[in-house]
Amino acid sequence: MLINCVVYQEGKKLSDIPVEEISRWVERPDCFVWVALRDASDEELATMQREFGLHDLAVEDASHGQQRPKVEEYADQLFVVMHTVELDALDQLRVGEVDVFVGRNFVLSVRNRSRHSLLGVRERAEREPHLLRHGAGFVLYALLDAVVDRYFPIIDLMESELEALEAQIFEPGSARTNVQQLYALKQRIMAVRHTVTPLLEAVAKLWSGRVPAVCEGNREYFRDVYDHLLRIHASLDSLRDTIGTAIQVNLSMVTIEESEITKQLAAWAGIFAAATAFAGIWGMNFEHMPELKWQYGYPLALGTIVLTCVLLYRRFKKVGWL
Amino acid sequence: MLINCVVYQEGKKLSDIPVEEISRWVERPDCFVWVALRDASDEELATMQREFGLHDLAVEDASHGQQRPKVEEYADQLFVVMHTVELDALDQLRVGEVDVFVGRNFVLSVRNRSRHSLLGVRERAEREPHLLRHGAGFVLYALLDAVVDRYFPIIDLMESELEALEAQIFEPGSARTNVQQLYALKQRIMAVRHTVTPLLEAVAKLWSGRVPAVCEGNREYFRDVYDHLLRIHASLDSLRDTIGTAIQVNLSMVTIEESEITKQLAAWAGIFAAATAFAGIWGMNFEHMPELKWQYGYPLALGTIVLTCVLLYRRFKKVGWL
Amino acid sequence: MLINCVVYQEGKKLSDIPVEEISRWVERPDCFVWVALRDASDEELATMQREFGLHDLAVEDASHGQQRPKVEEYADQLFVVMHTVELDALDQLRVGEVDVFVGRNFVLSVRNRSRHSLLGVRERAEREPHLLRHGAGFVLYALLDAVVDRYFPIIDLMESELEALEAQIFEPGSARTNVQQLYALKQRIMAVRHTVTPLLEAVAKLWSGRVPAVCEGNREYFRDVYDHLLRIHASLDSLRDTIGTAIQVNLSMVTIEESEITKQLAAWAGIFAAATAFAGIWGMNFEHMPELKWQYGYPLALGTIVLTCVLLYRRFKKVGWL
Amino acid sequence: MLINCVVYQEGKKLSDIPVEEISRWVERPDCFVWVALRDASDEELATMQREFGLHDLAVEDASHGQQRPKVEEYADQLFVVMHTVELDALDQLRVGEVDVFVGRNFVLSVRNRSRHSLLGVRERAEREPHLLRHGAGFVLYALLDAVVDRYFPIIDLMESELEALEAQIFEPGSARTNVQQLYALKQRIMAVRHTVTPLLEAVAKLWSGRVPAVCEGNREYFRDVYDHLLRIHASLDSLRDTIGTAIQVNLSMVTIEESEITKQLAAWAGIFAAATAFAGIWGMNFEHMPELKWQYGYPLALGTIVLTCVLLYRRFKKVGWL
Amino acid sequence: MLINCVVYQEGKKLSDIPVEEISRWVERPDCFVWVALRDASDEELATMQREFGLHDLAVEDASHGQQRPKVEEYADQLFVVMHTVELDALDQLRVGEVDVFVGRNFVLSVRNRSRHSLLGVRERAEREPHLLRHGAGFVLYALLDAVVDRYFPIIDLMESELEALEAQIFEPGSARTNVQQLYALKQRIMAVRHTVTPLLEAVAKLWSGRVPAVCEGNREYFRDVYDHLLRIHASLDSLRDTIGTAIQVNLSMVTIEESEITKQLAAWAGIFAAATAFAGIWGMNFEHMPELKWQYGYPLALGTIVLTCVLLYRRFKKVGWL
Repeated sequence: MLINCVVYQEGKKLSDIPVEEISRWVERPDCFVWVALRDASDEELATMQREFGLHDLAVEDASHGQQRPKVEEYADQLFVVMHTVELDALDQLRVGEVDVFVGRNFVLSVRNRSRHSLLGVRERAEREPHLLRHGAGFVLYALLDAVVDRYFPIIDLMESELEALEAQIFEPGSARTNVQQLYALKQRIMAVRHTVTPLLEAVAKLWSGRVPAVCEGNREYFRDVYDHLLRIHASLDSLRDTIGTAIQVNLSMVTIEESEITKQLAAWAGIFAAATAFAGIWGMNFEHMPELKWQYGYPLALGTIVLTCVLLYRRFKKVGWL
Repeated sequence: MLINCVVYQEGKKLSDIPVEEISRWVERPDCFVWVALRDASDEELATMQREFGLHDLAVEDASHGQQRPKVEEYADQLFVVMHTVELDALDQLRVGEVDVFVGRNFVLSVRNRSRHSLLGVRERAEREPHLLRHGAGFVLYALLDAVVDRYFPIIDLMESELEALEAQIFEPGSARTNVQQLYALKQRIMAVRHTVTPLLEAVAKLWSGRVPAVCEGNREYFRDVYDHLLRIHASLDSLRDTIGTAIQVNLSMVTIEESEITKQLAAWAGIFAAATAFAGIWGMNFEHMPELKWQYGYPLALGTIVLTCVLLYRRFKKVGWL
Repeated sequence: MLINCVVYQEGKKLSDIPVEEISRWVERPDCFVWVALRDASDEELATMQREFGLHDLAVEDASHGQQRPKVEEYADQLFVVMHTVELDALDQLRVGEVDVFVGRNFVLSVRNRSRHSLLGVRERAEREPHLLRHGAGFVLYALLDAVVDRYFPIIDLMESELEALEAQIFEPGSARTNVQQLYALKQRIMAVRHTVTPLLEAVAKLWSGRVPAVCEGNREYFRDVYDHLLRIHASLDSLRDTIGTAIQVNLSMVTIEESEITKQLAAWAGIFAAATAFAGIWGMNFEHMPELKWQYGYPLALGTIVLTCVLLYRRFKKVGWL
Repeated sequence: MLINCVVYQEGKKLSDIPVEEISRWVERPDCFVWVALRDASDEELATMQREFGLHDLAVEDASHGQQRPKVEEYADQLFVVMHTVELDALDQLRVGEVDVFVGRNFVLSVRNRSRHSLLGVRERAEREPHLLRHGAGFVLYALLDAVVDRYFPIIDLMESELEALEAQIFEPGSARTNVQQLYALKQRIMAVRHTVTPLLEAVAKLWSGRVPAVCEGNREYFRDVYDHLLRIHASLDSLRDTIGTAIQVNLSMVTIEESEITKQLAAWAGIFAAATAFAGIWGMNFEHMPELKWQYGYPLALGTIVLTCVLLYRRFKKVGWL
Repeated sequence: MLINCVVYQEGKKLSDIPVEEISRWVERPDCFVWVALRDASDEELATMQREFGLHDLAVEDASHGQQRPKVEEYADQLFVVMHTVELDALDQLRVGEVDVFVGRNFVLSVRNRSRHSLLGVRERAEREPHLLRHGAGFVLYALLDAVVDRYFPIIDLMESELEALEAQIFEPGSARTNVQQLYALKQRIMAVRHTVTPLLEAVAKLWSGRVPAVCEGNREYFRDVYDHLLRIHASLDSLRDTIGTAIQVNLSMVTIEESEITKQLAAWAGIFAAATAFAGIWGMNFEHMPELKWQYGYPLALGTIVLTCVLLYRRFKKVGWL
């Protein structure tokens, strides 16, 4: 679906144009065209390919979707794939895709499977004509920046989730849900990581070493995006590492808890076994068991049993089994 | 076994030719020859070596089979080894091999131990003469692309298998089969990885940096294959990492389950031990045990025992042992 | 908040100047201006940007805070971000930030969320005019050196903490607190690591390979800071590795302890079960149990029971279960 | 001990020569001398050093033995160390060493602590004069190839051993021997790895980048050896990774087994405890226990006990504890 | 403390000289001065700095001590830090430091916290004037070689210690000490590693790529030291890896042992519980229990109990629980 199709001159909006006139405007060196599509159909992509002269393979990738984030040069054009990450109503991660075709004087963005619109990017850019004058390269930066900025709240969320889990680990009795939640969190972190790592590598090509002509004047801006991605990447690595340790520590806590229960089990088993053994002995049917006939035999027996139990109890208490 | 032996001119099929005429056609700079063999015998390979002027070591590798995926340059010829991966009737992974010799104006492909034919590649190529006109390099791309595309369903299958296993991990009682299946899946992932990783490294040489002359005009196509391999590679890494965590988590679940059983064991042992101790005491044979003579001694005793058990039961229930 | 704003000539302090005159002094090639801010407001930063001609993106980073440690070149200016690490009253790690803008003849440092002042750096520098004469590059070195030197006591503290924990691991009964403390220590180490690793990479750019003009004359000094960071980095890696092993070993110790308790449980259970079985047998109500009528039946029975228990006890003692 | 000392011309054997004449023949540019020693004494090495003009450090290394596999250039000479790997009568790994000195027109090989002779290499080389004509570089290739080819059966053996172990892991009761055998296998794999990895790095220097003059004409042959080493290396990595998982899985299986036994223990303990509690109650000595006087009290009691036990048994069966 | 201060010419000792004359001799291009200090005071270092013209930062490092092993170039001088490793009387690792300043025609070595003297190096060097003639670079090599050679016995010792531990792992009952010793050994290995790894990196700069002028003529000698360090490094890596596995295996063995004890516990508990249950039943006080009145009731009962126990025992024996 077409969202916008606008021509800019000197950083200022000239007018909305119909799709068929794109190729005519693109020829003019002093203008640039910025088109935005959403969940584009194959026909729309075909039209765009004709109007902008896009490369077969790039269009094919955009139409298939499900690409890795990447930056590819086709002669003097760039094809950029980014992933968007959003939480849906059920707190599930949803990965969308933004494909951007950049030429000397045009930008075509295609947004797929993502609810967040990128309209804000255009508005902000139109408000700053001195920046928009930098042309297609600057628009690419603005789109990248917008996508990357939306990773931060996701990371923050995952970090607070992990902190909450860390507090739970050392409380007895929640091991099962801890493991489940740690596992689920790890899966989510890995998903975001597969979005960030390749984009990081891709963006590096836009500011360091030989840089595509269209980005040349905006190196510092792309380095800034790169720096944000690096920060996100470091946070993800740290999250991943911490979860690994947390799973290990959770297992330790389970084992420690089990060991404590085994101690209690052993202690109580000992106490009761002693009582039962005494009772068993005085329950034997020998004829000549003088103590059975004593006036105070029974209370003495009870006293012996209780005393033994108390002594055992205190001993186990002392060694920390109870 | 010979499958095809065809001469092309300007991207169009000229004619099938007998094997002995190959060398005559290869000399003509305006044509190119595309030969396909299957499970080739040493004699067939020797004939091909003579006709195309292949290098000793390359032919030796093709005849031995069991090579790592690789791309090797011999003067102006390329020798490419790829592995095919298929599931047989019993869902076992079977690794086959496709060896491709590429020269300035010929392609020779040898398929070994693989059921999937590559005929489709030739048909599609012949339908697009404007691409086939790019010559031997394009055919190599088409073969690579066909082999790599067949990795995707295998990856998808392994991903759904893992998802099914993940659901099982958190259900009690299936730990044993989980471990077995996770282990088997990991083995399969490693097998596919040994197919993909070296091919990834090899294909990189076909589009970045200094590129063999025969691939020069098709860089963007090889980059596309490379990109697919990178995606597969990332999926495999992610699968491997997840399986590692899953095995660890499965062990955690077993330990947690054991710990819960130990708790139940301890609780019930405590309850019965208390009952038995009481019964043992009143089973002693002392003469002077007044309560034994009481009218309601027995029901009182039973009541005491039951009460103790109930109290213990509720206490254990409260601390979560039962 | 402004702390200092001083002009230097030939390495000697000329005078404090008001903020508005900065741009006038910066124009003079024979002087350099060194300004220090603390928890700067956006207006202060805006003033500084005007006076020194700083780059938009750098000022934005300084105003947002929470950057990764880094060194960025903007034309002939440098923007350096470092993290300070301090322990607060509760022994919690607090990470602050020092942002430094360096130009051909000025240095602007902005300290955020950190209690340690950097005044000592200025004092020491002013005491050594022959070094301060090296200009802005030397001041950058002095600031870096001051920040990095404060990492060492933190590392030392964490190392002694780990040593104390190591001694505890092999003592029975403290597994639970060990795990908790090891986990907390690991978290702290990771936090410091995220401060050190990026700074290490950043400082490398100041002495090896192509070096920013402003640092050119002080390469050996930056290499020295780099070397300190490398040492800290190695210590952190070693700490991290050791903690990993310590967590693993702690788990081993818990398992070993549990295994020993299980042995004792089994041994005592065996001894009491034997006693109880004997008592049970002689407590049966058969009419024809001749030993029940013997004169010394009871002491013999008691003797048998005690003997059995002693024999079992010694046997368990021998195999190390008790 | 001297094994051979032969002069070749144009790839053909000229004659065996005495050791003292070596230096005279080495001077002739159209010949080359190939000497083979076995477990050479220091005097033999000194003679060789004199005759061939070998470097002090290289000779020292050869005389000490126990070097890492490596390729070192001394001016226009090469010093190559390879390790041989053999299984002795007791299936123990034995690591031997082959040191090769290569000059423009000579090869000196010294074999240490290895039973496999390298005579076959010379025979095969002499049968192919067109290859032997390539001179010293080709002989080095042939020796490398022979040593590397002997790694394959060792790898195969270790792979089948691991497969056998994998089958055992999932069978209960063999955990102890499994661990022992996995550990021993891992040790063996590490030993072979220490032989292969440095050789891999060393051989890379013989075909890629700047190549020693003596190997220049044989690049493709060295690349072939390199490729074999890469394959072996990948197999070893795979073996190592699999053993790591196998040890982990084995531990999982032990824990699972233990957990199953704990379940059975708990279940049977419960059943017997119930029976014992009932018997204990009816074994109490209260005077007024009417059921004791019933005609069918005893069978009813037995029935109750058996019924309780059966009910418990079925319940435990149902939840999978028995 | 000054140990030696000697001038050499053409590789031969000229004479001992007083410290104050050093600068006069260093000016002469045909001589070189070799000074050795031990646990040097700051004044001694200041004197040396004056005489040899050493760089501030290098002298500061030498006076602080506790540097990482490294090689630093200051203009045409080299500053080299190495660590010595020794075992003290209590078998504790002690790390000392040797700092070497190397100029075009002087060497200054400072040995700190190390008992092993380096006198042997000077003696051996003086015995070989043809090597000593290579000058300062050769002396640096000789010192490096001496320090590195002393790592080998430490490595050997740790390897035999590990082998002894490996044998213990599979013997039951020593798990606790095993873990403790493995942990201690790992700590020691890490300490040596922190000595070796940075030195390895540092020495690489002395023979590969651009090499400091003073080492230029001795490349092959430094490569030899590098090679030794590489061997040590590989051994340490192997040790570390093996210890990791050994700790894991030790935990497996503990778990296996515990599982075996649990089996025995369960088996004996079952046997005794059966006996006790029978005895309990015949100890009930029902009036109508005909078997109690039988002539051979008691022996029959005993027989039944024993038989049951024997049957259970054999059954447990068969399934391997006893």
